[in-house]
Amino acid sequence: MEALDYHAEERRKAEFDVEEMKIVWAGSRQAYEISDRVARLVASDPVFRKDNRTMLSRKDLFKDTLRKAAHAWKRIIELRLSGLFFSCGMFIPAIKGQGNEEQQQKWLPMAYKMQIIGCYAQTELGHGSNVQGLETTATFDPETDEFVIHSPTLTSSKWWPGGLGKVSTHALVYARLITDGQDHGVHGFIVQLRSLDDHLPLPGITVGDIGMKFGSGAYNSMDNGVLRFDHVRIPRDQMLMGVSQVTREGKFMQSDVPRQLVYGTMVYVRQKIVADASCALSRAVCIATRYSVVRRQFGSHNGGPETQVIDYKTQQSRLFPLLASAYAFRFVGEWLKWLYTDVTQRLQASDFSTLPEVHACTAGLKSVTTSATADAIEECRKLCGGHGYLSSSGLPELFAVYVPACTYEGDNVVLLLQVARFLMKTVSQLGSGKKPVGTIAYMGRSEHLLQCRCEVERAEDWLKSNVILEAFEARAARMSVTCAKNLNNFPNQEEGFAQLATDLAEAAVAHVQLIIVSKFIEKLQQDIPGKGVKRQLEILFNVYALSLLHKHLGDFVASGCITPKQSALANEQLRLLYSQVRPNAIALVDAFNYTDHYLGSVLGRYDGNVYPKLYEEAWKDPLNETVIPDGYHEYIRPILKQHIRVARL
Amino acid sequence: MEALDYHAEERRKAEFDVEEMKIVWAGSRQAYEISDRVARLVASDPVFRKDNRTMLSRKDLFKDTLRKAAHAWKRIIELRLSGLFFSCGMFIPAIKGQGNEEQQQKWLPMAYKMQIIGCYAQTELGHGSNVQGLETTATFDPETDEFVIHSPTLTSSKWWPGGLGKVSTHALVYARLITDGQDHGVHGFIVQLRSLDDHLPLPGITVGDIGMKFGSGAYNSMDNGVLRFDHVRIPRDQMLMGVSQVTREGKFMQSDVPRQLVYGTMVYVRQKIVADASCALSRAVCIATRYSVVRRQFGSHNGGPETQVIDYKTQQSRLFPLLASAYAFRFVGEWLKWLYTDVTQRLQASDFSTLPEVHACTAGLKSVTTSATADAIEECRKLCGGHGYLSSSGLPELFAVYVPACTYEGDNVVLLLQVARFLMKTVSQLGSGKKPVGTIAYMGRSEHLLQCRCEVERAEDWLKSNVILEAFEARAARMSVTCAKNLNNFPNQEEGFAQLATDLAEAAVAHVQLIIVSKFIEKLQQDIPGKGVKRQLEILFNVYALSLLHKHLGDFVASGCITPKQSALANEQLRLLYSQVRPNAIALVDAFNYTDHYLGSVLGRYDGNVYPKLYEEAWKDPLNETVIPDGYHEYIRPILKQHIRVARL
Repeated sequence: MEALDYHAEERRKAEFDVEEMKIVWAGSRQAYEISDRVARLVASDPVFRKDNRTMLSRKDLFKDTLRKAAHAWKRIIELRLSGLFFSCGMFIPAIKGQGNEEQQQKWLPMAYKMQIIGCYAQTELGHGSNVQGLETTATFDPETDEFVIHSPTLTSSKWWPGGLGKVSTHALVYARLITDGQDHGVHGFIVQLRSLDDHLPLPGITVGDIGMKFGSGAYNSMDNGVLRFDHVRIPRDQMLMGVSQVTREGKFMQSDVPRQLVYGTMVYVRQKIVADASCALSRAVCIATRYSVVRRQFGSHNGGPETQVIDYKTQQSRLFPLLASAYAFRFVGEWLKWLYTDVTQRLQASDFSTLPEVHACTAGLKSVTTSATADAIEECRKLCGGHGYLSSSGLPELFAVYVPACTYEGDNVVLLLQVARFLMKTVSQLGSGKKPVGTIAYMGRSEHLLQCRCEVERAEDWLKSNVILEAFEARAARMSVTCAKNLNNFPNQEEGFAQLATDLAEAAVAHVQLIIVSKFIEKLQQDIPGKGVKRQLEILFNVYALSLLHKHLGDFVASGCITPKQSALANEQLRLLYSQVRPNAIALVDAFNYTDHYLGSVLGRYDGNVYPKLYEEAWKDPLNETVIPDGYHEYIRPILKQHIRVARL
Repeated sequence: MEALDYHAEERRKAEFDVEEMKIVWAGSRQAYEISDRVARLVASDPVFRKDNRTMLSRKDLFKDTLRKAAHAWKRIIELRLSGLFFSCGMFIPAIKGQGNEEQQQKWLPMAYKMQIIGCYAQTELGHGSNVQGLETTATFDPETDEFVIHSPTLTSSKWWPGGLGKVSTHALVYARLITDGQDHGVHGFIVQLRSLDDHLPLPGITVGDIGMKFGSGAYNSMDNGVLRFDHVRIPRDQMLMGVSQVTREGKFMQSDVPRQLVYGTMVYVRQKIVADASCALSRAVCIATRYSVVRRQFGSHNGGPETQVIDYKTQQSRLFPLLASAYAFRFVGEWLKWLYTDVTQRLQASDFSTLPEVHACTAGLKSVTTSATADAIEECRKLCGGHGYLSSSGLPELFAVYVPACTYEGDNVVLLLQVARFLMKTVSQLGSGKKPVGTIAYMGRSEHLLQCRCEVERAEDWLKSNVILEAFEARAARMSVTCAKNLNNFPNQEEGFAQLATDLAEAAVAHVQLIIVSKFIEKLQQDIPGKGVKRQLEILFNVYALSLLHKHLGDFVASGCITPKQSALANEQLRLLYSQVRPNAIALVDAFNYTDHYLGSVLGRYDGNVYPKLYEEAWKDPLNETVIPDGYHEYIRPILKQHIRVARL
C-alpha cells in the first residue's frame, strides 16, 4: 500500500532533480549522507520526542532536557559520533584558543569526557556588548599564589551563561585581572563552581537560574544562570595563559603570541551562527511552503476546490524571497566555513593581513543573516494564518528559540557599526594606493561605481548576474562614500560617527548584502550536476537579489544606481520569477531533507496530512484531560447560578 | 522619606506639562480619571497579580484566569462598573446587530447577567478569511420546526473561538442555512453547548480546547476551542432573524433591514482593534524607553559612568519613531471612534453613502496599525538587548498576546487588498464627476498630485505639515494611479488584480499611512492646552512622518514625489528631531499613565530600579526551589562519574 502523500501531485511538478539538490544543500554527498543518517536515528528514537515540550512545566521541561542529553551522550559513544552536550559550546573552544599547552592538556580531556561540565561565564547583569566594562575582579594574591575572584557589585553578577544555573561544575569566568593594585583588563579564569561529589556550590559561590524566558519551550529547557563570587580563591594556573601570563611573583606579561589569534575563535563562532541561520530559516520556510499548498481559501468556481494560498501573488511575494534567502544564506555560510579555514592557516603563518576584512565580513554576515532570519520566521508564521499561532505549528517555538541570535555573540546593531568603521577606513585609504582585497575589492573600482549607469532596458535584463552585481556594488559603494563625505561635516570623526550612526549601519547592510549576492553568483559559477538544479538556483538567485532590490528601493533609486523605470522592470521580472518558482516550491523545500521530527510541525508535515493531525494534537492538551475544567465549581458555576456574593447589587 | 526614583533626573528634563499630556493621551479629563482609578484598583488587588503567569502549567494558568475573571465580575458589580468577562467580546454585539427585537430581549439580559456564557463560533478548521466558504450546516426541518446543526466534514469543525473550549454554555454558530434543499449562505444561530446544571456537553456536541499557543502565558490562559456537531437540533427562533428570516413553513426571507447594517459591527470591532494597537504599542515603548535610560554601555570616560543607551542615535532612530507611532495610532483611533458614531447615525437614517469609504478606511487602519504594532513590540524587545528576552521584561508575553491581531478579524493582507479595490474603483470613477469624499478626498486633486513638485530646499522645510501632507498625498495618489494603469495591461481586471496584488497592497499601505498622517495634523489643529504639550506633539508628528518617509523612501523617490536631495534633508531633519525628543522621552511615556502592574515589566518600572529587581525575580523560578536540580542523580551524576552504561566504548 502506498503511503498517504497529499503533496505527491506537487512533487511531480518539480522541474529538477531533488536528490541532486539535496546534495547541493548539504554541501557534499558525504555531508548529506551523514546528516541524513543522524536525522533518521534521532527521529526514530522515542527518547527524543519533543511534541509535548510546550505543555511541560519549567521543572519537567528542564528534567526532560537532562534526560535527552544523557541519552544523546550514550548514543554518541555507542555510535562513535562526536558531539558535546550540556556544556555550552564556548567552554572548550575558549580553552583551546586562550589556554597554554599545559592547560589544554589538563582541562580538555576532562571536558571532552564530561568528567567536568563547563560553561562560558562572560556576560554580566550590567555588561553585555561592552566586554571591556566587565566588573568581576580576579585579584592576584602573591602570598598564596592564588587569584581571588569576586563580584564587587550587583551588576557584576554573571548573568545569562547557558548551563550555568543548575548543571555546570566549572565556569570559564571573565574578570578584570588585578595584580599589585593594577588593572590589566579582562581575562579568562577557570573556576570550579560545584563539588564533583555532591554537586553543591562551593563556598563563596552563589549560583542559580535566571528564570523564564521567551516562549513555552525554547530556552526554558536550559538553565541560563546567575553567578556571584564572594572572594573565591583559585590557583594561579587557572588563569588562561595562552596569550597573557601572571608569574609567581605577580608580574603581568603579554606573551609573544599575537592577540589577533583570539579572532580565530570569533570567526569560528560567527560562521557557525550564519550556518544556523540558514537552518532556522529553511525550517520555517519548509513549514510555510508545505502548508501554503495544503491551505485553500477563496476562489472556488462552481463548487470546485478553492485556490491554494501559495497561488496568490501576495503569498508568493512574501514566501519565495525567504525561500531564496535560505539558499543564499546556506551558500554564504559554506563560503564562511572556507574563510575560517583560510584565516586559521594564515594566522598560524603569522599573516594577519586579511584579518580586518575577515572580521568585518563575519560580523556583518552574522548581523544581517540573523536579523533577516528572525523576521522571516515570524513572517512564515503569519503566512500560515491563524493556525501558525498554534504551538503545534512549530513556528512559535522556532521563533522563540531563534531570536536571541540577534543579541548574543555581538548585538546586531553594534556589529553593523563595526563593519561601518571598516568601510569608512577603506574609503579613507582609497587614494593611498592600498588596494582593497577580498569582499571589499569592489571599493577599488569606486570611481567607476560612483558614476556607472545601470543598463537595464527590458525586464529580462534583470536576469543577468553581472547587471545585478554592479547595481549592488554601486549601491554599497555610493552609500559608503556618501557617509564618508558627510562625516567631514562634523568637528571630529567620533562626533560624526555618533550622529550618522543610522546611515552608517545602513551602508554596512548594503555592503553585507552585496557579499551574499556575490557569493551566490560564485556558487552558480561552479559545476553543478543534476537535471535542472542549476536552473533552479539561478531562479532563486534572481528572486533573492531582485526582492532585496525592491525592499531597499530607496537606497538604489536615491543614490541613482537605478532609475524608477528600471525599478518597475525589476518588479515585473520578479513576478515572472515567482511563477517559475511556484511549481518547484515543494521540491525546493524537500531538498532540505528535514524529517518531520526535526521540523516539529503539524503544518509542515511531509505528507501534507495537516487537518486530521491538528485535530488529533488538540486533544492531547492537559486542559482536555477532563470534560469539566478544573475551577468550574469554584469560579464558573457560582456566576452562572448567580450565587456570587458581593457587597452590594 | 522620598521614594526611590532613578528616573527623577530624567523627569526633571521634560519641557512640557506631563499631567496635561496624560489628558491628551486619555482623550479627555473624564476618561483619564476613570482609567486612572480602574488601573489603580486593579494594581492594588492581590488577586490580579500576574508576575507568576509564565511559570504556571497550562491547567494552573487557565484556573488562575477563571479565578481572576470571577473576582473581576464580583468587583464590577460591587463598584457598579460595566464590563464583560469570560464571554468573548463578539457574542453580545452580534445578537445586538443581527438578532430581532424578541431575540435581543430574550438573550441579552441573560448574557449581561452571565446566566449564560456565550462565544462567537465562526472560524472553522478549514475556513478563516473566507467566511462564505464555511461548511457547518443548519438544515431546517419543517416537521419539528427546528434547525439541525451539523459538521459534515473534519474541516468544518469550529476552531479558534475564544471561551469555547471549556467555559461557554452557548455559542453563536455561523452555518450554511439550508431550507428545502437550497443553500442560502452563512447565517448565525444560537446553540446551547453545555448543560446549565452540570456543565456537561449536550448530546451531539463534541467540544474541547485546541491546545497550546504562542508564548508561555498569553492566550494559553484562554480556552480557544474546537466544536463539532452531530445533528444537533435547535428551535427555529434561535436563528438570528434581524436581517433574514425562515418562516414556520421553511420559507427563507430577507428582511427590509438593509444588509449594510452588519457593517456597523465590523467598524465597531475594528476601531476597537486600532485603539488596542496604540495601547500595546505604547506599553512596549514605555518599557523600552525607561530601560534605555537605565541601561548604560560603552563610552565611559576616565572611569565615569558609561553612556545611557538612549543617547545612541541608532537607539533613537529605532525607538523614537515607535514612540511617535504610539501617539499617531492613539489619535487616529480616537478619530475612528468618532467615525463609528457618525456612520451608525447615518445607517440609522438609511444613509449608506459613506459606507465604502468607511469600510476601506477601518479595514486599512486595522491592517496597518496591527502589523506595525506587532513588529514594534519585537523591536522594543530587541532594543532592551539580552534582558528583553527574559519573561520578566514583559515583552515576550506582550508580543505573544499581540500578534494574533494581525490575523484575526480580517487577515491583514486580505484587508489591504480590499482597500486596494476601493482605491481602484475610486480612480476609475475620477472622470465621472463623482467627487471622492472623506479620507479619499485627495484623489479629487489627483491631477495636481500627479505632477506637483515637493518644495523642500532646506532641512527645516520638512517641519511644515502642509509639505509633509502633500508628499504623502502625492505618493498615495501616484501609487494608486500607477496600479490602475498597469491593470489595463491584463486581459481582464481580475487577472490583473491577481498579478499585481503586491503592488496593490503597497498602494493601500500608502493610502492608510496618509490617513494616519492627516489625522495627526487635524489633532494638532485643535486647541491643546498645557505648557509645551502642543510643541511635543508637533515634534512627534514630524518624527512619525519623516521616519515613515525614510522607511518607504523607494515609494517617494521612485514616484518622483521627492528628490534624492530632499530625502537627505529629511534624514538630516530627523536627526535633529531625535535630539529634541530625547530630553522628553521619559515624560512622553509617563504620559501613558501605566501602572507597574499593567506594564508587568521589571525593565519598565516607573522608578527605574531595574537590576536589583531582575536579580530578585530570578530566584522565584521553580528551578531555584532546590540547589540540586531534579534529574541530577539520574542524568548528570552518572555521566560525571563515567558510570554511564553503553554498548561499547
